[in-house]
Amino acid sequence: MTQIEEARNGTISAEVRIVAQKEGLDPALVRQGIAEGTIVITKNNLHAVKNICGIGKHLKTKVNANLGTSEDSPDIKEEIEKLKVAIDAGADTIMDLSVGDKITEMLESIIKESTVPLGTVPLYEVATNVLKRGSISDMRWRDIEPVLERQAEAGVDFFTIHAGVTKRIVEYLKKRERILDVVSRGGSFLVDWIVKNGRENPLYTHFDRILEIAKKFDITLSLGDGMRPGAVKDAGDSAQIQELIVLGQLANRARESGVQAMIEGPGHVPIDQIEYNVALEKTLCGGAPFYVLGPLVTDVAPGYDHIAGAIGGAIAASCGADFLCYVTASEHLRLPDKEDIKEGVIASRIAAHAADIAKGVTGSMDWDNALSRARKYRDWKGQFSLAIDPQKPKKYRTTSKPKSSDVCSMCNEFCPIKRGEESLKK
Amino acid sequence: MTQIEEARNGTISAEVRIVAQKEGLDPALVRQGIAEGTIVITKNNLHAVKNICGIGKHLKTKVNANLGTSEDSPDIKEEIEKLKVAIDAGADTIMDLSVGDKITEMLESIIKESTVPLGTVPLYEVATNVLKRGSISDMRWRDIEPVLERQAEAGVDFFTIHAGVTKRIVEYLKKRERILDVVSRGGSFLVDWIVKNGRENPLYTHFDRILEIAKKFDITLSLGDGMRPGAVKDAGDSAQIQELIVLGQLANRARESGVQAMIEGPGHVPIDQIEYNVALEKTLCGGAPFYVLGPLVTDVAPGYDHIAGAIGGAIAASCGADFLCYVTASEHLRLPDKEDIKEGVIASRIAAHAADIAKGVTGSMDWDNALSRARKYRDWKGQFSLAIDPQKPKKYRTTSKPKSSDVCSMCNEFCPIKRGEESLKK
Repeated sequence: MTQIEEARNGTISAEVRIVAQKEGLDPALVRQGIAEGTIVITKNNLHAVKNICGIGKHLKTKVNANLGTSEDSPDIKEEIEKLKVAIDAGADTIMDLSVGDKITEMLESIIKESTVPLGTVPLYEVATNVLKRGSISDMRWRDIEPVLERQAEAGVDFFTIHAGVTKRIVEYLKKRERILDVVSRGGSFLVDWIVKNGRENPLYTHFDRILEIAKKFDITLSLGDGMRPGAVKDAGDSAQIQELIVLGQLANRARESGVQAMIEGPGHVPIDQIEYNVALEKTLCGGAPFYVLGPLVTDVAPGYDHIAGAIGGAIAASCGADFLCYVTASEHLRLPDKEDIKEGVIASRIAAHAADIAKGVTGSMDWDNALSRARKYRDWKGQFSLAIDPQKPKKYRTTSKPKSSDVCSMCNEFCPIKRGEESLKK
Repeated sequence: MTQIEEARNGTISAEVRIVAQKEGLDPALVRQGIAEGTIVITKNNLHAVKNICGIGKHLKTKVNANLGTSEDSPDIKEEIEKLKVAIDAGADTIMDLSVGDKITEMLESIIKESTVPLGTVPLYEVATNVLKRGSISDMRWRDIEPVLERQAEAGVDFFTIHAGVTKRIVEYLKKRERILDVVSRGGSFLVDWIVKNGRENPLYTHFDRILEIAKKFDITLSLGDGMRPGAVKDAGDSAQIQELIVLGQLANRARESGVQAMIEGPGHVPIDQIEYNVALEKTLCGGAPFYVLGPLVTDVAPGYDHIAGAIGGAIAASCGADFLCYVTASEHLRLPDKEDIKEGVIASRIAAHAADIAKGVTGSMDWDNALSRARKYRDWKGQFSLAIDPQKPKKYRTTSKPKSSDVCSMCNEFCPIKRGEESLKK
């Protein structure tokens, strides 16, 4: 039985117990969330995930880091080092977005090395194969099905499936003047396929078979947003919202079939549209966990998109988004290097944690209180060990030379914390 | 006459005209905002400010960078280099927060070199002087007044004045258990003084004389928040809100006396409290421009406080805050170096700009649209020149080697923008 079926039967599985324990929640609450589809546990039943991860309502906001080889960057060893950087920085899940010849080998390595749940976009492997013999429009269901089966058997915990890019949506897209029509790779393959073949998206028409495969391995479906806006001006148009409606229907079919589902969301979204994007997803998709990419709140920050994404992610998560896909400083420019990956994970974790305080996630402010108490007593070691990244503040402090060891070089003898302590002795 | 007096008389000053032109607004609207106190133009009438800057309602959100020498870091040349870094990165104003022996010399240099309005906290010079002969509790009005006069004559454009730290507020502070009692340097001096002398804050009792000096030079008063929370747990307590009530009364007295005023705000604030903090300031302070420090939305991010501050600043400004004081990555750890200053200004500008899109500031999304169009056509030079920081994306791209020159190494031949362009030809 899958997690959702077990939960519906009233069973508290070992995984539910682990998630509840990690979150400081009653296992009954987690079980109920899974039964209702507001919580997912991303775990392939063939995969021994060391750090079991729950995503959804009442739980801490989670952070995903994308990795993967490409034709320009086919070094698996390098990607495995990046995996370690991402996990050390605190990523809750990893997506392997490899394209090109090394896909199979890379997936095997990363499943072996990852201590956290692993997701893929199987369409990338399909496209890599199809492009070897022709163009995307030549893709057939017989190219897709075996890749889904193979990746499922390899132990992938969640699949991004762009089943919501329907013929009708491509019509919407054609009619509307977007600045950037399609910025989702999976979405662009399917738009291309639909335009050239004039037929319905095979991931949509074969969705029942996808559900069968997912159910067999208890793979969570992450319903991809091929129509996500790639410019703030394009946000919230009919193509995006129409796709969300379809994703809500697919999520419902998944739940009815005993398959866990979450919904992927934008993208580039101005701040004033984030709250209703989240509310709309929750309403249209029956409260399915919402997995957002950023969102980036402006287009003008290449080189700093981890910051634009942290702003959007914090707002989205504080409004109810459950899962943040990191955006690194190298977004729109190149594949991220290790430093970008580390800083990208940290930026998303800051957003996730700040949102958890705002949405009242159990125990989230305790961390801040502990760090602020260490700050009060100028306990520098305590501050470092409690910091979201212990290395960076330590490095900063080491490079400065305050006159007195219990203050910092910003205020020195003017340190208000020290001064207040003396004048306000209680 | 001061700007506010001229505006009330119906005069459109040269400065109003410049601000209106820079913002793409009708000069009458800017004049009205100044007359009502919802807009300030921070300019000492002795200071030839090259980049005149308006702050407040309907205007673009502005960004301030703090600089200044200290006993540990007394190098004026270094600070002037930092000034250039901050201005090149796009800071709209600078505050010289110097403490220690070099204050006078530093202030003269920075006024000479700065092309943007300059603010100070005159109490820092007062405290530096008083501490040479004894303790803060020895401070008398005769120590304060000449410093205000001298800095006014030197051309300082705005003064932070912590006149809201009253005896009553110190009583509130004593009663409540904050994690971090006082984290404002100015606030901590005054709390110390009030506790030791048992008398009312001299900046409060002599506020009329401060207004006279400010009026003579048309200095904008930035009413300081000595009670700003320094931990998210401490946010929104009675000491903070009581001080805001006092600041509202003082802002009103300033406006009545023909002096422009803005209000300083927190600090460390959880996301769910930001919106009402801004709304409360607008209501209690008659719509005076709100100048926030961050706010930091979590305490756990030392080394990354520019990100925690960008999240809070974007939310605050999208809710109506007008002016963001940058927070650098070195906050809580050391004085910022040049790199911290640059990245701190950029992070705050991302927050300010994202907020401007959300609050519908005239023309703000045009910038994003232009950059996204350059992205659509893979016009890399265009993307760099339009980017909030042209250097960093250029550097990123230079270090990556995509197979084809019109895409990037993240997607390469899978570039959805290029692919969509081909399949969706209109």
